[in-house]
Amino acid sequence: MRLLGKQEIEDIAVGAALLGTGGGGDPYIGKLMALQAIEEFGPIQLLSVDEIPDDAFFVSSGMMGAPTVLFEKAPSGTEAKLAFEALEKYMEKKIFATFPIEAGGVNSLLPLALAAQLGLPVVDVDGMGRAFPELQMVTFYLDGISATPMVLADEKGNVTLFNTIDSLWAERIGRSVVIQKGGSTMFAIYPMTGRNLKESGIHNILTLEEEIGRSIRLAKENNVDPIQEVLKLTKGFELFRGKIVDVNRKTETGFARGTAKMEGLADYYGETLELRFQNEHLLARTEERLLCVTPDLIAVLDAETGQPITTEGMRYGSRTVVIGIPCHSKWRTAKGIETCGPGYFGYDVDYIPVEELAKKGVVSK
Amino acid sequence: MRLLGKQEIEDIAVGAALLGTGGGGDPYIGKLMALQAIEEFGPIQLLSVDEIPDDAFFVSSGMMGAPTVLFEKAPSGTEAKLAFEALEKYMEKKIFATFPIEAGGVNSLLPLALAAQLGLPVVDVDGMGRAFPELQMVTFYLDGISATPMVLADEKGNVTLFNTIDSLWAERIGRSVVIQKGGSTMFAIYPMTGRNLKESGIHNILTLEEEIGRSIRLAKENNVDPIQEVLKLTKGFELFRGKIVDVNRKTETGFARGTAKMEGLADYYGETLELRFQNEHLLARTEERLLCVTPDLIAVLDAETGQPITTEGMRYGSRTVVIGIPCHSKWRTAKGIETCGPGYFGYDVDYIPVEELAKKGVVSK
Repeated sequence: MRLLGKQEIEDIAVGAALLGTGGGGDPYIGKLMALQAIEEFGPIQLLSVDEIPDDAFFVSSGMMGAPTVLFEKAPSGTEAKLAFEALEKYMEKKIFATFPIEAGGVNSLLPLALAAQLGLPVVDVDGMGRAFPELQMVTFYLDGISATPMVLADEKGNVTLFNTIDSLWAERIGRSVVIQKGGSTMFAIYPMTGRNLKESGIHNILTLEEEIGRSIRLAKENNVDPIQEVLKLTKGFELFRGKIVDVNRKTETGFARGTAKMEGLADYYGETLELRFQNEHLLARTEERLLCVTPDLIAVLDAETGQPITTEGMRYGSRTVVIGIPCHSKWRTAKGIETCGPGYFGYDVDYIPVEELAKKGVVSK
Repeated sequence: MRLLGKQEIEDIAVGAALLGTGGGGDPYIGKLMALQAIEEFGPIQLLSVDEIPDDAFFVSSGMMGAPTVLFEKAPSGTEAKLAFEALEKYMEKKIFATFPIEAGGVNSLLPLALAAQLGLPVVDVDGMGRAFPELQMVTFYLDGISATPMVLADEKGNVTLFNTIDSLWAERIGRSVVIQKGGSTMFAIYPMTGRNLKESGIHNILTLEEEIGRSIRLAKENNVDPIQEVLKLTKGFELFRGKIVDVNRKTETGFARGTAKMEGLADYYGETLELRFQNEHLLARTEERLLCVTPDLIAVLDAETGQPITTEGMRYGSRTVVIGIPCHSKWRTAKGIETCGPGYFGYDVDYIPVEELAKKGVVSK
């Protein structure tokens, strides 16, 4: 167990936004909520998965909806508590601790805010090792652990509890409720035992986020390139350097969908990169080459500071570096690719690991 | 207390379809389910509101969605039971009896089927005295009784529980779930005490439905006009006689919406009637005259047999009599008119009681 204070929150927010691959929510709001909670209730207990009891009961907390909406419709802080109370009552079990469902500026930080508020520990684990847009896109789903009973609670006080036959139905019905609630709402989801969480989750994700955030923060004073530091920590690859020349973004069916275009600079002069996203960046390609595709991670960083840029933060003229990071090996199984590979999102390419694509000269079909 | 057997079910189905004003579901499916349940579990106990304990706990059961869909997607019979179990668990209360939320071919009969199956009594009361398309359109809403906690359960086994800040939110969020579930699903709704039910409900509705159904059934052998019998029982008015010449019907946003046109016969020769409906008939007018408007009841009957015709049963060429029935006085209050008067449905007319409109010569604006 270790305690997370304000500096840790600041660093986690940056690392989470980077692993959030453009989605997972705006790090500014998530961070503010967590800092505020620490201010009020003191530091947060972080447990590694090795420290949690096998038979205790764990529930993830966070936000479902389009990150573009959350920015204008901030949570009131009481929704997550309402959701936990409803779930405890329905399941007749006491929640031992919470955990983030994914890496992302909002969804890595909200469980920390809630934990401080409720006096619960947070477990250093998530279900993605990155961010993904849909509820069933978690390693728990690959292992047959249900998203439900799950609860959605909004800032007005409306509570909806779902007990569905599978997590695809939870996504489908839940998404329609989120849309009615104005495009974003808080959840309590994937209730499970400590044993399940240990076996199925992706370990040490908050610690990795913190390390990434710290290395970006310290790069300047250590006089090192923040992007090289990030590539070392994540075993990632530089894919492209360029200037954003076009962003096309719509909030529809409860998601932020769109494309962005960048004109190449330096080594990439003369090439144009196209990014496609649904909350998260899912595909990066030039006219000639496929550079990286989901479930591998695509992150857009500020070329100078190394700070991650979310899909809603992309602005014309920004100079960026696009990096690719190998996803967790659980996503590279047949069921992993089926669940969140390019085919699921309607992209007509086969999944090829970013390590292979990063070898110069690979030509996309 | 009295027992309802097969003949009573047959009669209730007809009377309920008539008071269902074209909506409330197809009487054939509701009747089959209730008859099947009686066959299997024996007759059903019907309690008058004077016989129920003030502090016991009552829940309405039925179907939410477009009646046009239910016809192709019949309930499996286990959904309502699932919904009741989830509600009892969440509220930590035992359900004493159930009751219909509205008069209608499906929603008057489903509580009877469920009651037989669970061995519960049914209370002779509903929340409308007719059918209406939305959840908040009940006398309980006028009296501040919440629709939630409510549960929707579908034939696949998906259960969704709602605890909303008001019944308009229950309608809004619930409807979106119904649409995702294919357009119809079963509910357990408006949990309340016996005292609430007694004070706020519309009494003796099942008995009235049974009387209407019986009078239509017996008219032929008694050599009387079934339509005159119905008008006597309901204090209703003949509005029009004609032939259906046009039906325009769409299932959209979870409702069956549309218009129907009839060419006048006999006294009404040369006039054309237009009916507008959203699950239920809501407005009847000719070019010259407004004949009847929600919340008063508009029923379309077969001119020869007196059998009610649902909106989805209307066919080109059918000869019909359109009747108007004064609604319960609770609907004629300011809040009643605001909740389900013509303005709510977007019709640009003021509410005028059918008794006044039925006086020949009243000209619509």
